[in-house]
Amino acid sequence: MASQHFAGVLVPVLTPFTPAGEPDAGRYVAFCRFLLDQGADGLAIFGTTSEANSMSGAERMALLDRLIAAGIPAAKLMPGAGACSVSEAATLIHHAVGHGCGGVLMLPPFYYKGMDEDGLYAFFAAVIERVGSAALKMYLYHIPPVTQVPLTLALVGRLIKDFPNTVVGLKDSSGDWSNTAAMLKEFPGFGIFPGSEVFLLDGLRHGGVGCITASGNVNVPGIRKVYENWRTPQADALQAEITLARKTIQAYPMVPALKRIVAHFHNDPDWAAVRPPMTRLSDAQSAALLADLAKIGFTLGERQREAAE
Amino acid sequence: MASQHFAGVLVPVLTPFTPAGEPDAGRYVAFCRFLLDQGADGLAIFGTTSEANSMSGAERMALLDRLIAAGIPAAKLMPGAGACSVSEAATLIHHAVGHGCGGVLMLPPFYYKGMDEDGLYAFFAAVIERVGSAALKMYLYHIPPVTQVPLTLALVGRLIKDFPNTVVGLKDSSGDWSNTAAMLKEFPGFGIFPGSEVFLLDGLRHGGVGCITASGNVNVPGIRKVYENWRTPQADALQAEITLARKTIQAYPMVPALKRIVAHFHNDPDWAAVRPPMTRLSDAQSAALLADLAKIGFTLGERQREAAE
Repeated sequence: MASQHFAGVLVPVLTPFTPAGEPDAGRYVAFCRFLLDQGADGLAIFGTTSEANSMSGAERMALLDRLIAAGIPAAKLMPGAGACSVSEAATLIHHAVGHGCGGVLMLPPFYYKGMDEDGLYAFFAAVIERVGSAALKMYLYHIPPVTQVPLTLALVGRLIKDFPNTVVGLKDSSGDWSNTAAMLKEFPGFGIFPGSEVFLLDGLRHGGVGCITASGNVNVPGIRKVYENWRTPQADALQAEITLARKTIQAYPMVPALKRIVAHFHNDPDWAAVRPPMTRLSDAQSAALLADLAKIGFTLGERQREAAE
Repeated sequence: MASQHFAGVLVPVLTPFTPAGEPDAGRYVAFCRFLLDQGADGLAIFGTTSEANSMSGAERMALLDRLIAAGIPAAKLMPGAGACSVSEAATLIHHAVGHGCGGVLMLPPFYYKGMDEDGLYAFFAAVIERVGSAALKMYLYHIPPVTQVPLTLALVGRLIKDFPNTVVGLKDSSGDWSNTAAMLKEFPGFGIFPGSEVFLLDGLRHGGVGCITASGNVNVPGIRKVYENWRTPQADALQAEITLARKTIQAYPMVPALKRIVAHFHNDPDWAAVRPPMTRLSDAQSAALLADLAKIGFTLGERQREAAE
């Protein structure tokens, strides 16, 4: 298995939209820079939290072009490049590899349901062959609550075996620790990232390399602290703190909630905009969310505000 | 509510692929012509059966360009133009409307699950506004077993009310007659097509206008016979015949099975190719399917063969 270079706290970056509903490249570049300044180890742009699937492939590629042009290091980027078709996935990946991105995060084809393992395998294999680049480092994206198309251990094992220099890691957003644990056990050396910081410490203790987590958009410093101190006696207390923050946020619709928090701490109300089919939090929900965060002393957010100002 | 002009038997046309996995425009044009010659009232190209979601938007638009260039009447075409993003859906629809297509069939955004009615409404509304054409005739595509995103009666009612000249019909592929019956009752004059010929006669008796059905790819004449004779005493017997054929085919994975039947009756083995994540039928499955069809005297297929030769 090839080594992979990502580790630590990766953020599936929220995508800002203008009041007219277009991707807002200016705010986007600034926010990516802010997250790296805060200590993010990598940016898993164009993930589920990024509303990537609410953008066309062309829109995503244009945003990536803007990040690169602005000097965001490509090695820090792991763009989501999933699509329902081999052809579109290959186009997106080819573009990312051309920019020298550190990796790509790839969904299974998520339109058709109940496809068998051979068909899913053939999809990934066809994309890898079509891209045809030794520079491609692919992370599989397991998020069955959304895709309804699970990546089984057997499938992941076949892909690792047949594409050892390409298929180098996986984001597990199943929300099911027993699945993450089984993968960590089965595939030592594979770059496995739980899809939530709730499993960060457990993951690190069992061979995980970090996490890729939505709440990184508003809490890089707190999550990084667990990553930096996981072998210390403080680890469990630090983990409890970030778990509480996460659970407070995810009591609300996650993406609109995160955007509302960013709007608040960055003093930038336009940040709250989402693209359909998502909807913003109502005023009442927003007030309740911010009150809930104040109640648990979400000071990390405050520290973010200072950095943003 | 605006009138809509589609009625009868519409076929979600299978998409042939070359051995290298590319859309095969030559075979595609010939097959569309064949289906119209067989009596198909319309071609709902780029549907689920068409493996449309296994093609990029660019590939779909290129195929539509080829059909138009070959003289297939645009008024007979109802391309699927669903996508997860407002931007891509609008691009596909704009292209179809530009060609003068009789309508477009539009999926809900199918990546994110559990979005609320307001969000789904906003998605359709944003696409319609972005296309901004009085020529657009939109058919909603309800296929929750695949999308996992249902179009509720309340949502459909809002869209009909707010876009009466645009939202003119719906394909109901829920497989749930009670849902189709409820929609027929709730929305008289709306162009409702069950997504299977199994419900053709029931639909016509309750105000439906026809069906859009995968098995039309191999059985236009049989299904047309029900449509032409639905008020006659033979209707139930004719319906039983096409229901039996449908159920025989759908005992196998539907798209690969239909492609295998086309390959057989058109003496063209390359037709059996599918794109990942779908897989072909095995030789054993193929033999069993053809034997099952022979057992029920699938003579309509034989008639197709004569027409194809």
